[in-house]
Amino acid sequence: MSIPPVQAALLSPDSVLRRAAERLAQRFAGMVGEETVERVVFESYVALGRTAKVQMHLPALTERFAEDRLTALAQTKGLVVKAVPEVLYICVHNSGRSQMAAALTRHLSDGRVHVRSAGSKPTGEGILPSVITVLEEIGIHVDQEFPKPLTDEVVRAADAVVTMGCGDACPLYPGKRYLDWELADPATLDLDGVRQVRDSIRGRVIDLLSELAPPFSISPRGGSTRERGTFGP
Amino acid sequence: MSIPPVQAALLSPDSVLRRAAERLAQRFAGMVGEETVERVVFESYVALGRTAKVQMHLPALTERFAEDRLTALAQTKGLVVKAVPEVLYICVHNSGRSQMAAALTRHLSDGRVHVRSAGSKPTGEGILPSVITVLEEIGIHVDQEFPKPLTDEVVRAADAVVTMGCGDACPLYPGKRYLDWELADPATLDLDGVRQVRDSIRGRVIDLLSELAPPFSISPRGGSTRERGTFGP
Repeated sequence: MSIPPVQAALLSPDSVLRRAAERLAQRFAGMVGEETVERVVFESYVALGRTAKVQMHLPALTERFAEDRLTALAQTKGLVVKAVPEVLYICVHNSGRSQMAAALTRHLSDGRVHVRSAGSKPTGEGILPSVITVLEEIGIHVDQEFPKPLTDEVVRAADAVVTMGCGDACPLYPGKRYLDWELADPATLDLDGVRQVRDSIRGRVIDLLSELAPPFSISPRGGSTRERGTFGP
Repeated sequence: MSIPPVQAALLSPDSVLRRAAERLAQRFAGMVGEETVERVVFESYVALGRTAKVQMHLPALTERFAEDRLTALAQTKGLVVKAVPEVLYICVHNSGRSQMAAALTRHLSDGRVHVRSAGSKPTGEGILPSVITVLEEIGIHVDQEFPKPLTDEVVRAADAVVTMGCGDACPLYPGKRYLDWELADPATLDLDGVRQVRDSIRGRVIDLLSELAPPFSISPRGGSTRERGTFGP
């Protein structure tokens, strides 16, 4: 079976990704080299595509994922100023716990921290429907979010890293605060169970914000946060 | 809990990976920029570490993985000559089918092709013990191999891409030959079943080699290879 050139050009993501790489190279000019930008774009595409169930929106998601990774890289180099602390949430699939934690943090912090999330083994299924439901119940919408694999830049750019059920998947780099939250996996729970996880995460997020972004006025609550340590000097 | 600086330095992979990046930057000088080399090294570390059960040998495996990716990148740029055709085998975990196909191709091709393998969802468990056993039965050792995620560079560098059970995880790029082999997953089979998969792969590899590297003298056999098409012009 031989695919005709015209159809081949339509099927191939190559030209779409090259245009995305050009846009991002322009945006990060003077901060990240063109070759690196191109690598991050193409590598992001393959990383998302490895587990994706539907390939249709991949190029658009790739550009967003790559842009965030390049921003993190520029932050790490000190070329983009971190106006607020960076928080990174990591779980296994980036479809439940870490998405809830990120959404709640965005909602509760009112812009006083910036949030990213990732998974050690991201799923191509998208965010769990039960998670979307219990977040919508409290007025939070996550329809623009999608599961992403953990990458080096986002760990480096983080001031606080919170792991949830993903073991030692996250590398330890000096100068960051590492926390581990023990929470049930929403994928194994009914809707009431997922609501409990949501509320437990909400309490922990409030605690964390009160430490990372002190202007926050709600007093810290007790919780089962296990401190993994401020790592390094 | 605060980890003392000395211990932190010992625990952190940072300095080991920086030295690996320096070595590789030197090796690929004039072909791949230092920034890109560093990104590939650190990103390889996190990608392997996401699923690894044991973190101990990760820095060494990272350097090998990164070196192979950089070689593929340099090949794609035309800066490293491909002396022989490049074959890429992809399965789900890169712990069974694609490792057997790669090992058998290396063994049977006698250097007339170069082989890579990868997985859409690589496992941290290493290669399946049953696969190691049935390969050792025919004098092939795979103790230096390890599961790796599919990345962009190795697809680009490939002349022939063979997928085995990983769906559409591999991007379609023009000018390559794509094949799909339907084979049972060794993880679900007893030793006799794995032997049958091995022998089926062996037949297909012989067919493929007779096409890619014509000097091969064994006549083509019938098989159930499904041609996915030479892609593009």
